[in-house]
Amino acid sequence: MFTLTLEQSMAQAAQRTSEALASLLPAGDGPEARLTEAMRYAALGPGKRLRPFFALETARIFDLDEASVMRAACALECMHAYSLIHDDLPSMDDDDLRRGRPTVHIAYDEATAVLAGDALQAAAFEILADARTHPDATVRIELVARLARASGAAGMCGGQMIDLLGVRDDLGEVARMQRMKTGALIAYAFEIPLIVGRVGEGERAALMAFAHDLGLAYQIVDDLLDAQGDAADLGKAASKDAARGKANFVTLLGADAARARADLLKQQLKHHLKPFGARSQVLSDSVDFVLDRRR
Amino acid sequence: MFTLTLEQSMAQAAQRTSEALASLLPAGDGPEARLTEAMRYAALGPGKRLRPFFALETARIFDLDEASVMRAACALECMHAYSLIHDDLPSMDDDDLRRGRPTVHIAYDEATAVLAGDALQAAAFEILADARTHPDATVRIELVARLARASGAAGMCGGQMIDLLGVRDDLGEVARMQRMKTGALIAYAFEIPLIVGRVGEGERAALMAFAHDLGLAYQIVDDLLDAQGDAADLGKAASKDAARGKANFVTLLGADAARARADLLKQQLKHHLKPFGARSQVLSDSVDFVLDRRR
Repeated sequence: MFTLTLEQSMAQAAQRTSEALASLLPAGDGPEARLTEAMRYAALGPGKRLRPFFALETARIFDLDEASVMRAACALECMHAYSLIHDDLPSMDDDDLRRGRPTVHIAYDEATAVLAGDALQAAAFEILADARTHPDATVRIELVARLARASGAAGMCGGQMIDLLGVRDDLGEVARMQRMKTGALIAYAFEIPLIVGRVGEGERAALMAFAHDLGLAYQIVDDLLDAQGDAADLGKAASKDAARGKANFVTLLGADAARARADLLKQQLKHHLKPFGARSQVLSDSVDFVLDRRR
Repeated sequence: MFTLTLEQSMAQAAQRTSEALASLLPAGDGPEARLTEAMRYAALGPGKRLRPFFALETARIFDLDEASVMRAACALECMHAYSLIHDDLPSMDDDDLRRGRPTVHIAYDEATAVLAGDALQAAAFEILADARTHPDATVRIELVARLARASGAAGMCGGQMIDLLGVRDDLGEVARMQRMKTGALIAYAFEIPLIVGRVGEGERAALMAFAHDLGLAYQIVDDLLDAQGDAADLGKAASKDAARGKANFVTLLGADAARARADLLKQQLKHHLKPFGARSQVLSDSVDFVLDRRR
């Protein structure tokens, strides 16, 4: 056995996820092929595949079989892809570009974009429910229950609603919005191996704390990038929040205090991984990657 | 024990379903309450609750506990409600009225309508995955798997894509579109008790044939109503298909042949129920209701 570096682990996770997703989302035939094409355009496009990386790297800590975790991570990517399609719609954030490519409603049309998102959500649950994901139905149903919870009105959809309505000058509200809108699906990446590996309460609590702080740190860095970024570097229009008068961690705290808070979270994140020792080295390295990223 | 008439059974199923849904979709608080309100507006509005009626009436044939079937039927209603919200969107069928009330994007706004649909889909799977739906995880995961399949690219979403693209003058294609777009969720109403009751292959096949023909007959009658109806009677704008140049059973067959086909299906539907004898009387009566309905 040899140990992969962070870059190798991330590249490998991204490639394997894309391959697995491509086979889980076959190009259809018949007149509905336009729908499956749009689903593949969204789900198989370029992306960091951070959530699958987190799931697979956490699975490594517990020496789990990769096949189950990979399928569940693909389901998570389907949900993530659907949320991006719908968030980009004209009636939502009205974005024409995503990762440097036309968004789905630009590349296809609005109706196809709505449907592709809807069908990707269904595909996520279909993948999780399939016996090939795990032989034990109690594991599969917990994967379904947690994903449904994380993505519905109490999670991602609720968070997007709050974001659309616009949060006022309240840091607690911004933090709650982040936990719901993006934190819940990031946390789910860590829940996958915890559920598949039937991990005990102590280790589960440490990793969920890690997931929570990581989601928060990720959002603070996102807000810093939103304030500083330019369109060429981000692959999407920048400083959207400021232009829309939306409060976020940077508009409320200022860039310096936001950066200081992210640095504090970095220490805390590494602390959460202490119990896992060397097995969590790549995950620990990924904290630096997430917090120091430039896009 | 006494036997309920069709009208009593339908009214009772509708009322119980609405009550169960109201408790499964609580009004939220916090700034995201607008989302949960829109979800309730769509799911708790007036409706025939035909799918829950079919599920509950089929459960009666097999003397099943109503609680499991009711929860799964509520999940199905959440999916049905989400599909109506999204189908009504300006980028889809662009309908302002549904059952005589403003559609969700009119009563709220387009972004809220997209999100309410998304969150209702997640709620459906959350309800099914909950242990209160059935103590056995293998039953719950089959309910999830079948609903995901029925509603995704190979089912409802795929059918809606075909419908949006417009079917040419091919009866087979119109029939396939109907099976995917509306037939799959109607069939799921019958699958619920079959899964919950672990019904054997012979009875399962008879009821799935019934479900298939019922969905087809329902659509033919829908197309007849679309051709003949007026807006006041339907609670929505009528003759939409003709105005949009879309092929359906009536534009392809003509009204007389379409009606003859529906009548033939009526005989066939009653034939499918023969093995169940008197236990299926109310279901048999409902065939007349569905095929002779005027809205």
